[in-house]
Amino acid sequence: MLPTLDEEQLRVLRRVGREWDRVSGDPGLWRRALPVDPDLGSYPAPGEIRPARFGRFVPITPPGGRPPAVEAAGEAEIPASLPGRVGYNVRRVVLGAPLKSTAIAHERMRKLVALPVLSADALSSVAYGPEAMLAILVLGGTAGLRYSPPVAATIVFLMLAVGVSYRQTIRAYPHGGGSYIVASDNLGRVPGLVAAAGLMTDYILTVAVSIASGIAAITSAVPSLVPDTVPIGGAVIAVLLAGNLRGVRQAGALFAAPTYAFIIAVFALVAVGLYDAAGRGFHPTPTPHLTATEGISVLLVLRAFASGSTAMTGIEAISNAVPAFTPVEWRNARTTLTWMVGLLIALFAGTIAMVQLDGVVPNTTETVLSQLAHRSFGTGLMYVFTQAATAAILLLAANTAYNDFPRVLFLLARDHHAPRIFLRLGDRLAFSNGIIVLSAAAAVVYVAFGGKTEPLIPLFAVGVFLAFTMSQAGMVVHWWRLRDRHWRKSLFFNATGGLLSAIVFITAGITKFTAGAWVAILAVALFILVTMRIRHHYARVAKAVALHPHAIEVPQQTLALRIGEQQAARAASQAGESEAEAEETPEEVQHLVVVPVAALDLAGMRALAYAASLQQPVLALHVSPDEDEAERFRAYWRLWGDHLPLEAILSPYRAIVVPLVNYIESLHRQRPDVTLTVILPEIVVRHWWHRVLHNHIAARLRRALRPLPKIVVTTVPFHV
Amino acid sequence: MLPTLDEEQLRVLRRVGREWDRVSGDPGLWRRALPVDPDLGSYPAPGEIRPARFGRFVPITPPGGRPPAVEAAGEAEIPASLPGRVGYNVRRVVLGAPLKSTAIAHERMRKLVALPVLSADALSSVAYGPEAMLAILVLGGTAGLRYSPPVAATIVFLMLAVGVSYRQTIRAYPHGGGSYIVASDNLGRVPGLVAAAGLMTDYILTVAVSIASGIAAITSAVPSLVPDTVPIGGAVIAVLLAGNLRGVRQAGALFAAPTYAFIIAVFALVAVGLYDAAGRGFHPTPTPHLTATEGISVLLVLRAFASGSTAMTGIEAISNAVPAFTPVEWRNARTTLTWMVGLLIALFAGTIAMVQLDGVVPNTTETVLSQLAHRSFGTGLMYVFTQAATAAILLLAANTAYNDFPRVLFLLARDHHAPRIFLRLGDRLAFSNGIIVLSAAAAVVYVAFGGKTEPLIPLFAVGVFLAFTMSQAGMVVHWWRLRDRHWRKSLFFNATGGLLSAIVFITAGITKFTAGAWVAILAVALFILVTMRIRHHYARVAKAVALHPHAIEVPQQTLALRIGEQQAARAASQAGESEAEAEETPEEVQHLVVVPVAALDLAGMRALAYAASLQQPVLALHVSPDEDEAERFRAYWRLWGDHLPLEAILSPYRAIVVPLVNYIESLHRQRPDVTLTVILPEIVVRHWWHRVLHNHIAARLRRALRPLPKIVVTTVPFHV
Repeated sequence: MLPTLDEEQLRVLRRVGREWDRVSGDPGLWRRALPVDPDLGSYPAPGEIRPARFGRFVPITPPGGRPPAVEAAGEAEIPASLPGRVGYNVRRVVLGAPLKSTAIAHERMRKLVALPVLSADALSSVAYGPEAMLAILVLGGTAGLRYSPPVAATIVFLMLAVGVSYRQTIRAYPHGGGSYIVASDNLGRVPGLVAAAGLMTDYILTVAVSIASGIAAITSAVPSLVPDTVPIGGAVIAVLLAGNLRGVRQAGALFAAPTYAFIIAVFALVAVGLYDAAGRGFHPTPTPHLTATEGISVLLVLRAFASGSTAMTGIEAISNAVPAFTPVEWRNARTTLTWMVGLLIALFAGTIAMVQLDGVVPNTTETVLSQLAHRSFGTGLMYVFTQAATAAILLLAANTAYNDFPRVLFLLARDHHAPRIFLRLGDRLAFSNGIIVLSAAAAVVYVAFGGKTEPLIPLFAVGVFLAFTMSQAGMVVHWWRLRDRHWRKSLFFNATGGLLSAIVFITAGITKFTAGAWVAILAVALFILVTMRIRHHYARVAKAVALHPHAIEVPQQTLALRIGEQQAARAASQAGESEAEAEETPEEVQHLVVVPVAALDLAGMRALAYAASLQQPVLALHVSPDEDEAERFRAYWRLWGDHLPLEAILSPYRAIVVPLVNYIESLHRQRPDVTLTVILPEIVVRHWWHRVLHNHIAARLRRALRPLPKIVVTTVPFHV
Repeated sequence: MLPTLDEEQLRVLRRVGREWDRVSGDPGLWRRALPVDPDLGSYPAPGEIRPARFGRFVPITPPGGRPPAVEAAGEAEIPASLPGRVGYNVRRVVLGAPLKSTAIAHERMRKLVALPVLSADALSSVAYGPEAMLAILVLGGTAGLRYSPPVAATIVFLMLAVGVSYRQTIRAYPHGGGSYIVASDNLGRVPGLVAAAGLMTDYILTVAVSIASGIAAITSAVPSLVPDTVPIGGAVIAVLLAGNLRGVRQAGALFAAPTYAFIIAVFALVAVGLYDAAGRGFHPTPTPHLTATEGISVLLVLRAFASGSTAMTGIEAISNAVPAFTPVEWRNARTTLTWMVGLLIALFAGTIAMVQLDGVVPNTTETVLSQLAHRSFGTGLMYVFTQAATAAILLLAANTAYNDFPRVLFLLARDHHAPRIFLRLGDRLAFSNGIIVLSAAAAVVYVAFGGKTEPLIPLFAVGVFLAFTMSQAGMVVHWWRLRDRHWRKSLFFNATGGLLSAIVFITAGITKFTAGAWVAILAVALFILVTMRIRHHYARVAKAVALHPHAIEVPQQTLALRIGEQQAARAASQAGESEAEAEETPEEVQHLVVVPVAALDLAGMRALAYAASLQQPVLALHVSPDEDEAERFRAYWRLWGDHLPLEAILSPYRAIVVPLVNYIESLHRQRPDVTLTVILPEIVVRHWWHRVLHNHIAARLRRALRPLPKIVVTTVPFHV
């Protein structure tokens, strides 16, 4: 949380501190005994009743002679206001008790646990990838479907190549090599951001597509649920949101079950299907005759290839999570990756083979996998098991994105490319803000596309393969720079994987450009623009708030020089510039206290008393619509004793805020070196619905004064 | 604007002032020479270029030896920020230049001008009143329509009675006797509010019904516009809003034309119709056979009577506007009222007679008046003239409500029954807030009812006759109390008018209860509840902010007593009470300055320098997630020189705002007599879209500290 100061800043800090020693005023005044005990330890005296709120802070004496501090007990997190308390309690019921930072635990996974947990995303893709491919080929009619085996074979080859590529990444990045890290490490800032954009699209769409596809698995079995697709999906996203805000740990066994169940179900389906097919001599069941709605063209085949490639989304998960393996981490991760790719190819190829043998054709009411399960298992227990396992693994895949998306945002925020709020761990140690953004984005995409898988596929393919390409390209540069043992082989594999990924990305981008890929490409461009601007802004702020040693020169100067400075400041201000807000010592702060007073009532009098008690020059302001009203106020002022200078501002058009602000700014322009403290009496009402009865001049003045330089705004509340 | 202080308050003010003379500190400190010239006169020196903004304030020296003041020139009203300037310019283009308070002019109207201007509302009611009556009777089929003459005759009698009643009101209230004034003067607060509720319903519905009816006049002539009824009505309301915010004066001739045109058109229509009827021996054209959808019952006839009574809405306008007549005001107003009632009866009776003779039946696509005009004039110029005049007078009637509604709100606000914003004259000298509220309410009603007249009639009748009843009842009490010459006669007339109005109100309320009148009755009840609560709130605030002479006792007390007081205050705070925020002299304010610091950067350092420069005890606070982070911050603090006391607050759950607020409150509870000044460094970004990149801790702390007593919040801005 606390930024580390570099050597230069430390040196400046020391020098600024030495200036404080030298200030001419009485430093004793602001170091004198405090009227309260900040450690809250000695008060109230023993035997007295401690008010409830004090129980919330525990005075602690750290070891090693460090000074005492107070620690906020759990109850000190509870807001005092009623709506605040209600919000707090709702959060506690939904999310559970807050967790201390020390509760972060690093679990290690055995290969047999890591395999199902980390491959859920990849393996579940088999539930929609083949179907997405067939849905394009079927546009070419029965003839189109004949291209299914060669396209599937190409995809299998792609899986192999990308799998081998990621084996190289695991070896090179044993601490986890996400696409953003690999690309920005090796290719630079912008390629890193391109990879991050691809990744984030990927994660959002993983959630949307997995949920859409999971619900399709359920509605295939229970068609009466079809009209409720969108609300069911919304509910699933809400559950994922709440579950991940709670910071659900990856409970091994629980998360392993759906993956193994899915693997078993698909293998059984293929085995039974093959047995049946063997019975009829492997003659494919003829497909019903399909009329082509499009001619068979290279474009159609390429589109089918790009869509079918979504069957390998999630293949990168293991390379992100290398440190989660038991030692030797990278070796175990590589072995697991190999198993996973093997399983993925087997499931994918098996599914495609069954589609060919059973003559299944995609339709809009039942998923291909469900049709295959019907052919193999009928409608009995095994069918229900298959559909349930499919839905479960897809839900698990969606959950995977909830781990990865906030982490990418965290990395971006760490590099100043994303708002700082994504750095923050919530009170359940989850990156709450990233989780909320992912849920919102996925929900918008899901609802906008009506909970359908098909129209999301083009966007999905573009995002995923963009990230793959950047990651593999980064690895190529990595090997080239490193040139250690085996670098040629590794470079060759990564180059192959990268090239193939690039081909899929370009194919998807071009062939599906009008079908939605343009949205993804536009989003990537916008993302890079915005993230670069964010970094620029943070850099500018960091430069502005850095201490600079200007204060060192001041005390040596004579009074004459100071006056000269003032004149220079005036000249600068007249030229439109304003004095920098750079006072670093109390001596540099010159005060004028300005008090706008509407009436000499208790609220106004209290603001005047507060202003006078600051022992600085005070100027009271009163806005009147005309001179007669001003004179009425002056009469009260004289009756009171005329203790402070008063300036009447006549506002013939009856406005209050803008003339006051402009007047205060003109005071600032007279003496840009003086810090103006504007003291605003403000009536604070007990209930929000009383606010409409008061004029909020104080709040409006505060807002209007905010952009002005060197104007400090002090609100003196008056509670009624 | 400035409340007048009573004798008691003046006495207290003098005594508080004398305490300021006695304060033990150096009053010279806060009365010493100001670093700026508040009159802006001597700066910049002659010959120097005056920055643009200074030109916006004119130093003025009032006559009679009064002290100088500055007057905001027109440009001083222009906000400095870009959105502010854009808003200002848009307002100026739409509304025109701002007007000084001295620009208020009181026009006097001759009777021939007053008649059309003030009777537009009443006479235009003929465009929808008869139709509303017929629309109910037609439910009883052809037989139902036969009840039209007797019901109409009763309404004519009602018009006469109410007219005579208002003649009495004009004599008794020559300065204008709106229902609210008459009822609250004579019957008390709640009946006055009842009348105001009725009036305000009346005015909102006048706008909605007049516009709906005016557009019906247009769509009767041009049926192709029917689908656009709602958008056209919205546009008309927008024009009325803008026109009235501009403060359009009642330009006699312009506003007289539509009324005279309407009178001429209807008289011509009746004359031509009678001539035609005479040609066929006054035999009524037979109506087409109508099937009854309801049996003819007393209830049906009563409902028709209540609906038809809306033909006399607006009859009270002249009694509100007596001071606008040329002298002798009340006599001229009475004469004009008599003419108006005569015209109203003539137009109403003529219309009903023509309906009978022409056998016209209300239908949903064409207004009754348009049907009559077709019969009399065919489709030529005279027909178009009739429809145009009808639309114009209805628009004028809607505009009348824009004069009256804000005035009722002003009177309510003056009596503390409505929010203070309704007291305020906008920069065009119009009661802008009331105008905006009326437009919004009318637009909501208009759109909710789809721009149809018919369903609005029950609500309308309830509101209007409620106001009439309260007003007449007030007059009865008035005469009874006064008992001057002729009081018996006046009392009799008002009693008759009141009784009849009450009968219509009750009839409308009961017979149309389920048709919408319950909304109006509920709204009235809610209105009275809310306005009474508002008065209660303002009374409580006024009591709270009144000066009270507690300060007088303090200086005579010994230090020992002061300490005793502190202990008492502590005890009180432990018992859950908090010290009153009632300091009236600087001496009573005891300071502790608290500075939450996140980092020792320039923004934080500036806040610390500002805090120390106030020459009061300072306590710096730093929130850390754990002790190690706290120690890192302390190391920087020591490097800087440890100039101020620092307290580290450990927040193991990583929250910042709530623990800080609770800690500050626990400081307050230790010493409820000390005023805590919390100084918040705040980064102010240049563009609103940069705000998402910063964490707004300062704004959130400010909001959370607002409800706490005796905590002053100071924002030290740092502009990046």
